[in-house]
Amino acid sequence: MEQIYNYIEEHWLEAIEDLKRYCAQPSISAQAVGMEETATLTAELLRVCGINSQILQTKGQYPVVYGELKGESPYTLLFYNHYDVQPPEPLELWTSPPFKPTVNEGRLLARGVSDDKGDIIARLLAIKAFLNTRGHLPISIKFLIEGEEEVGSPNLPAFVENNRDLLTSDACYWEGGRVSWEDRAEIILGLKGIVGVELEAHGAIRDLHSSIGTIVPNPAWRLVWALGTLKDADENILIEGFYDDVRPPTNEETEAIRVLPSDETELKESLGIESFLNGLTGVDLNMRSILQPACNINGFISGYTGEGSKTVLPCYAKAKLDFRLVPDQNPKDIIAKLRKHLEKQGFADIVLTAAEGEKPARTSLDSPYAKIVSEAAREVYGSEPIIKPSMTGSGPMHLFTATLGLPVASSGVSNPDSRPHAPDENIRLADFILAAKHVAAIMARCGQ
Amino acid sequence: MEQIYNYIEEHWLEAIEDLKRYCAQPSISAQAVGMEETATLTAELLRVCGINSQILQTKGQYPVVYGELKGESPYTLLFYNHYDVQPPEPLELWTSPPFKPTVNEGRLLARGVSDDKGDIIARLLAIKAFLNTRGHLPISIKFLIEGEEEVGSPNLPAFVENNRDLLTSDACYWEGGRVSWEDRAEIILGLKGIVGVELEAHGAIRDLHSSIGTIVPNPAWRLVWALGTLKDADENILIEGFYDDVRPPTNEETEAIRVLPSDETELKESLGIESFLNGLTGVDLNMRSILQPACNINGFISGYTGEGSKTVLPCYAKAKLDFRLVPDQNPKDIIAKLRKHLEKQGFADIVLTAAEGEKPARTSLDSPYAKIVSEAAREVYGSEPIIKPSMTGSGPMHLFTATLGLPVASSGVSNPDSRPHAPDENIRLADFILAAKHVAAIMARCGQ
Repeated sequence: MEQIYNYIEEHWLEAIEDLKRYCAQPSISAQAVGMEETATLTAELLRVCGINSQILQTKGQYPVVYGELKGESPYTLLFYNHYDVQPPEPLELWTSPPFKPTVNEGRLLARGVSDDKGDIIARLLAIKAFLNTRGHLPISIKFLIEGEEEVGSPNLPAFVENNRDLLTSDACYWEGGRVSWEDRAEIILGLKGIVGVELEAHGAIRDLHSSIGTIVPNPAWRLVWALGTLKDADENILIEGFYDDVRPPTNEETEAIRVLPSDETELKESLGIESFLNGLTGVDLNMRSILQPACNINGFISGYTGEGSKTVLPCYAKAKLDFRLVPDQNPKDIIAKLRKHLEKQGFADIVLTAAEGEKPARTSLDSPYAKIVSEAAREVYGSEPIIKPSMTGSGPMHLFTATLGLPVASSGVSNPDSRPHAPDENIRLADFILAAKHVAAIMARCGQ
Repeated sequence: MEQIYNYIEEHWLEAIEDLKRYCAQPSISAQAVGMEETATLTAELLRVCGINSQILQTKGQYPVVYGELKGESPYTLLFYNHYDVQPPEPLELWTSPPFKPTVNEGRLLARGVSDDKGDIIARLLAIKAFLNTRGHLPISIKFLIEGEEEVGSPNLPAFVENNRDLLTSDACYWEGGRVSWEDRAEIILGLKGIVGVELEAHGAIRDLHSSIGTIVPNPAWRLVWALGTLKDADENILIEGFYDDVRPPTNEETEAIRVLPSDETELKESLGIESFLNGLTGVDLNMRSILQPACNINGFISGYTGEGSKTVLPCYAKAKLDFRLVPDQNPKDIIAKLRKHLEKQGFADIVLTAAEGEKPARTSLDSPYAKIVSEAAREVYGSEPIIKPSMTGSGPMHLFTATLGLPVASSGVSNPDSRPHAPDENIRLADFILAAKHVAAIMARCGQ
């Protein structure tokens, strides 16, 4: 691998020039800015590398850029990335213009550089290293680079479903990741599922004077009572069967969580809270954060909420909730259980509207692929990687684990201060080089 | 009394001219329109009648018009009225301009004609009838006509407290009332108390991504749980000692409620509800509506409440509540009990802000004064009056029952379709005549 690593060290500056050019091209899916140009540019960047690339229409607005290149081994690694970026606003908080990539004190600042154009270019640098030194890749690779990740990947499920054959692979390398505060690689092996719900209670046909509150049903009370049956003050979710499909952690997962570095003090300070839920700390806190599902109230509105008093009996109350799910919970099943629960508790009058949701995804820590990604990180970063069995957030990873049946791992070019989705999004040049080497090391190991 | 009633029938048209002039003068306390002019006009209307009137400054913006006239008996009846009116908006929904009093099919339409200028003029007509036929009143009378009723009477408590001697009386006749759908006089003997409360829960210093909801406290949940401890789904208020001071109804009150006419079907239809709380109907419904206290949620706000999904963990949740109180509950005591309850239930973190509140007021149905008002109604209206031991709403009546120690009753010139506070506010001319006669009959009886 020496030869490969040397190539990366000798050519990373050229790759950074590619990355600057790539980031200078806006691709804001939410604002329909520069999407077509960026799809074309992405396909071109792949083609220049020697990858067969094409632009595939989805049922949505922005196409998928697909690429493939056969290698020595039939083992195929599928890279999932996206070429769209978040809107750059608020512009006034940027040190340099978001679409004018700028190097400053070892960091490259630009919208999309961390999420996720930097990872695309680092992966291409690793591929170039193999092709320009050995003349071929150790394994076969595929790229699925979508254009709608920042708007919730609405057309990705159908695309993956309809292109199972095209996407057939042995493992998937997820869009990106970061190093820790101590510069250890973080490897992510899962995402939580999510399903959003609206609960509505209705009363009279208009807001009434509250003096009638002794005899007319108040939907704000109905909704408070209904919500009160969902979760108790010790955070136990009371929906019958809610925890039935929660997969117990493996010994490896428990151990990985046990050795996670702690950032509790900094986190509490930055959030302005005195303690975490139920007073949890240490391993218990991380176990809960990473492995447990949740039921969150996102919002609640009813009646008069302005200044001063208005003695109104509201005609309407609405709460927005999300459930964060862990393997093997299923959004549809959870919604069915929620519906049944409300009926059983006497709240059949509460109107429930549920979104489609996303399933949770997790790759076993003792899968050969997870071990390959870890060993590669240990070699490249020279330290023990931090392994997170799951992120606390959600995303379309289940399309790759469940629909395609692949092990999935994620790590990448970012750092703890990369500010994705925020002003001054950045990566450190040193991390870019390490991430490219890490990808190369993974490819080499997958081919053995 | 024949002579008195004849006078009223011969002179009511002159009184209606006074009323038109009075209503043509806007007096919108909430908008500071025409208040000084109306205070002057009110004092003049009293003076023209032969009543010694004066304008007394309060600690607030708009003065009290005070009047008095001694009569044959030292028995003194205090009239409580107000010269301010509600804003006339929305103007486009008025059949005729709100400050251009117009007679149409036996009704006089104008802002303030029902609430409460019509009652002032009807009372003055009764007084004129005595003075212009007998040369003197059978009893002594006093007028307290305030200018801030429509903005919550903020300066009335201090005014009454500071003018106890001036206001010394034997009974109080409240601002107004209406006849029923069957043209029976309604006599009101009480108002509920009220106290407004805000409950706030705080979490992190800003809204967070809801993926952190497994470990960071969610103030929306805290507030839902806290509210859930206040009242159960059977409408029992669970605050310790909340019902301690609820005075049991007397036999007379129970009987008065038992014979109330029913308007359940019409009410349910107009509110668009299928049934009343707890499925109550008939006497049980009226007993609850008139005699029971209530705990209402007026409003609830937290987090994201717009369209679509936003997976936010709110940093803040607020609920606005009002408690409707019945004799002998006391706002201060109820707030103290609420505070203690929240602490005891583990919600000391909930921030409670309470308004001053108003005490409940009720005059005994078997008090001599209540009997006088009823008998006078029976004579004038020729039917059994409807007696309501209490309205469901609130107001400053306790200043007269508690601070001044007077029995208080209310009835007046309005009808079920009088639309106070709304466009096309109106009274029927026939009701105006009956109300003036009713006042005269009450005065005559009080002097016997």
